Amino acid sequence: MLEQALAFAATHQDSALEELKAFLRIPSISTLPNHAPDVRRAAIFLASELRRIGMSNVEVIQTAGHPLVCADSLQAPGKPTILCYGHYDVQPPDPLDEWVTPPFEPDVRNGNIYARGAVDDKGQLWMHVKALEALLQQGPLPVNVRFIAEGEEEVGGEAIAAYLREHPETLQADVALVSDTDMFAPDLPTLCVGLRGMIYTEIEVRGARTDLHSGMYGGAAPNPFFALAQILTGLKDAEGRILIPGFLEKAEKPTEAELAAWQQLPFDEAEYLQHEVGSPALTGEPGYTVLERLWSRPTLEVHGMPGGFTGAGAKTVIPAKATTKVSMRLVPGITPADAFSMLQSAVAKLTPPSVTSEVRLIHSGDPVVVSTDNPFVASATEAMRQVFHRDTVFVRGGGSIPIVGDFQRNLGIPTLLMGFGLPDDNLHAPNEKFHLANFYRGIESLIRFFVLAGQA
Amino acid sequence: MLEQALAFAATHQDSALEELKAFLRIPSISTLPNHAPDVRRAAIFLASELRRIGMSNVEVIQTAGHPLVCADSLQAPGKPTILCYGHYDVQPPDPLDEWVTPPFEPDVRNGNIYARGAVDDKGQLWMHVKALEALLQQGPLPVNVRFIAEGEEEVGGEAIAAYLREHPETLQADVALVSDTDMFAPDLPTLCVGLRGMIYTEIEVRGARTDLHSGMYGGAAPNPFFALAQILTGLKDAEGRILIPGFLEKAEKPTEAELAAWQQLPFDEAEYLQHEVGSPALTGEPGYTVLERLWSRPTLEVHGMPGGFTGAGAKTVIPAKATTKVSMRLVPGITPADAFSMLQSAVAKLTPPSVTSEVRLIHSGDPVVVSTDNPFVASATEAMRQVFHRDTVFVRGGGSIPIVGDFQRNLGIPTLLMGFGLPDDNLHAPNEKFHLANFYRGIESLIRFFVLAGQA
Repeated sequence: MLEQALAFAATHQDSALEELKAFLRIPSISTLPNHAPDVRRAAIFLASELRRIGMSNVEVIQTAGHPLVCADSLQAPGKPTILCYGHYDVQPPDPLDEWVTPPFEPDVRNGNIYARGAVDDKGQLWMHVKALEALLQQGPLPVNVRFIAEGEEEVGGEAIAAYLREHPETLQADVALVSDTDMFAPDLPTLCVGLRGMIYTEIEVRGARTDLHSGMYGGAAPNPFFALAQILTGLKDAEGRILIPGFLEKAEKPTEAELAAWQQLPFDEAEYLQHEVGSPALTGEPGYTVLERLWSRPTLEVHGMPGGFTGAGAKTVIPAKATTKVSMRLVPGITPADAFSMLQSAVAKLTPPSVTSEVRLIHSGDPVVVSTDNPFVASATEAMRQVFHRDTVFVRGGGSIPIVGDFQRNLGIPTLLMGFGLPDDNLHAPNEKFHLANFYRGIESLIRFFVLAGQA
Repeated sequence: MLEQALAFAATHQDSALEELKAFLRIPSISTLPNHAPDVRRAAIFLASELRRIGMSNVEVIQTAGHPLVCADSLQAPGKPTILCYGHYDVQPPDPLDEWVTPPFEPDVRNGNIYARGAVDDKGQLWMHVKALEALLQQGPLPVNVRFIAEGEEEVGGEAIAAYLREHPETLQADVALVSDTDMFAPDLPTLCVGLRGMIYTEIEVRGARTDLHSGMYGGAAPNPFFALAQILTGLKDAEGRILIPGFLEKAEKPTEAELAAWQQLPFDEAEYLQHEVGSPALTGEPGYTVLERLWSRPTLEVHGMPGGFTGAGAKTVIPAKATTKVSMRLVPGITPADAFSMLQSAVAKLTPPSVTSEVRLIHSGDPVVVSTDNPFVASATEAMRQVFHRDTVFVRGGGSIPIVGDFQRNLGIPTLLMGFGLPDDNLHAPNEKFHLANFYRGIESLIRFFVLAGQA
């Protein structure tokens, strides 16, 4: 059955690519209200393809926002159940004039397909559909599969989060499978086994009752921006060490094995500085490598400082209040609730006596680490070894993928983050692409994974 | 002649008030283009009144912006020349719904006249006109007088600054007389003899080449806002002491006599905190009283911090650049050029190695101190002593009045800041007022001043 499925996929690469192009031509930009009909069109396209390949119970589910697409194929009694997840919405394509070819007219060149959504996530979602099709051509699937795709990943994923809270029973599975991440380097099969959590907050400082003139009152009235500068430099030192008492002590370190594995990854700090960041130098907590700082250490970042006068020219105001938007990335050992409460206490202690402060929580997410000794990880790495002829590397991600926490919390299952993008695929940027070799190797890897998971 | 002039003013108080009301009814809001005809109307009203009272060479001078009104009366050979200055433009009246009576329908109640411009500056300008009229009724003036009024004081005063640069010979005088300030307290005759200068700057910090995702790059990429917080706390300490090397050492202290006089002023710090500022506590450089900090110490204030994400909610961006608008108030001993160059050096030294910074000068103004032992100060204090039966207090102002620096620079003359407003006159705010007793006492004080200056 495996050989026949692989042969089907191999002989149908051209039609798989043509179908993906049709999918990519639909400008399903979830954040733009005038594209709502396109988002819906993409959902219907996906659902009809799922029906055509033989999935059961295919549904386009209405939500308060964009629709969910659900399906299943539960013909393998006694076998594990895999929950496939993907998203069919895309980011806006601006700035349009930087695209070599139009974002919604997919173009194949240099072995890549260029289009908005090529890798994030329509192309990777399409690998799931094509792997399932290749297997369904041979008969019932070797594992049970549930399938869910959303159209709001780029705008917060409210609908799927609500659905998971309200209907967890309809998505019962043993593991979730998500293809929405990168390989660490070309030809290097990669599983992402950890994501940082976060709290996103606003720290507001209030001084005088009303805005004051800086000539009349400067030297006696408190300046909320200056108080914020004092608070921020009290929360993190110049080298990047978080100073909140007791905070860093709670951060759990990766295992020695994981750290040793990271040392082996092909990472060149000078090239990262020059090509990815482009600043005069990097920053960060002393005593940790760049990858450790990005994946296993918490952060405290400022995103903006609303308040006062921000127009062109000069206005001599001492504002009555000012705010800073501050987020903290969290690692295992630090829950969002702990982090928020420690941040609140630290800000209260750092607030000068001439002003008052308030810390507000905007949103939060748990840090996630997937154990690498679960059987699905073994099936995934074996599948990719057969395709890439190399061992899989285990990496973490510095960001947060909230759905992974939702799967953990609402369904009690771990997630396999098995992605086939590349670091230079221009996610959320002009000229987004997906390397076609990875598209086909992804389909093959997924076929092998479903078969191996059924044998585990 | 003095007695007759005072008698004329006393018997013509009603007509002086009615004329002022007519002046105040003209909504000469200089910042609103649709009020340009009103600004012009106010200029013509003023010019025709100057002609009517017997001033010579009355002219409405076209400029790139709003007109200047000039006049003179130079019939006192061998006597000093006084340059009277005022402005006939006003601030916008918003928020309109907080006015008890409409801003351009002058209303007399509680011994005050309420209207936009009542005290700033039409009412105080009108004192000059009425004092000159009372004297001209008796014959040639006892001193030489040049008169200039502008219609752009509330929007930067470009036209008069250009006129002073280009035609200084037409305004040659021995002293300038400006009535556009407050008395320190009711019934307390006041001369303002010092104003702080300023530099207004933008400090821009650049880190990564483009905006970065705080999950992907947080912990390795520099954050320009955090660098700004470090720079700001390096420029001024938590107590308000400016840390720029060598800066505070240049600030000249007021004389012991001036400081002793400030100690005698009726100033209640607790009441100032509660009623004027309204913050939990005051701030400021240790070792100086509030009045010293406001009048004779330099400041460093933050007005806004443009950049990054300032909308509602959350965006996880590490911005490529961020800016802070910073002004410094300057006192004698520190020129704007020195201050800017010292600030630039200090910012360069405080800039972390992971980012670059740039300091831009937006505008600047010189600090001004008028010696109190010039003969015009003696004439002014004697004039006010005869009216208020109290000694004049000498104060300074924390803000900047650029025209005073221009008179010093372009004409080489000092300025007498003899104002009759009160601290609660609601300048630039709803329900602006002028205490009528001060309007009449101001006219009398000015009549006595012109006579005394002619005898000096």
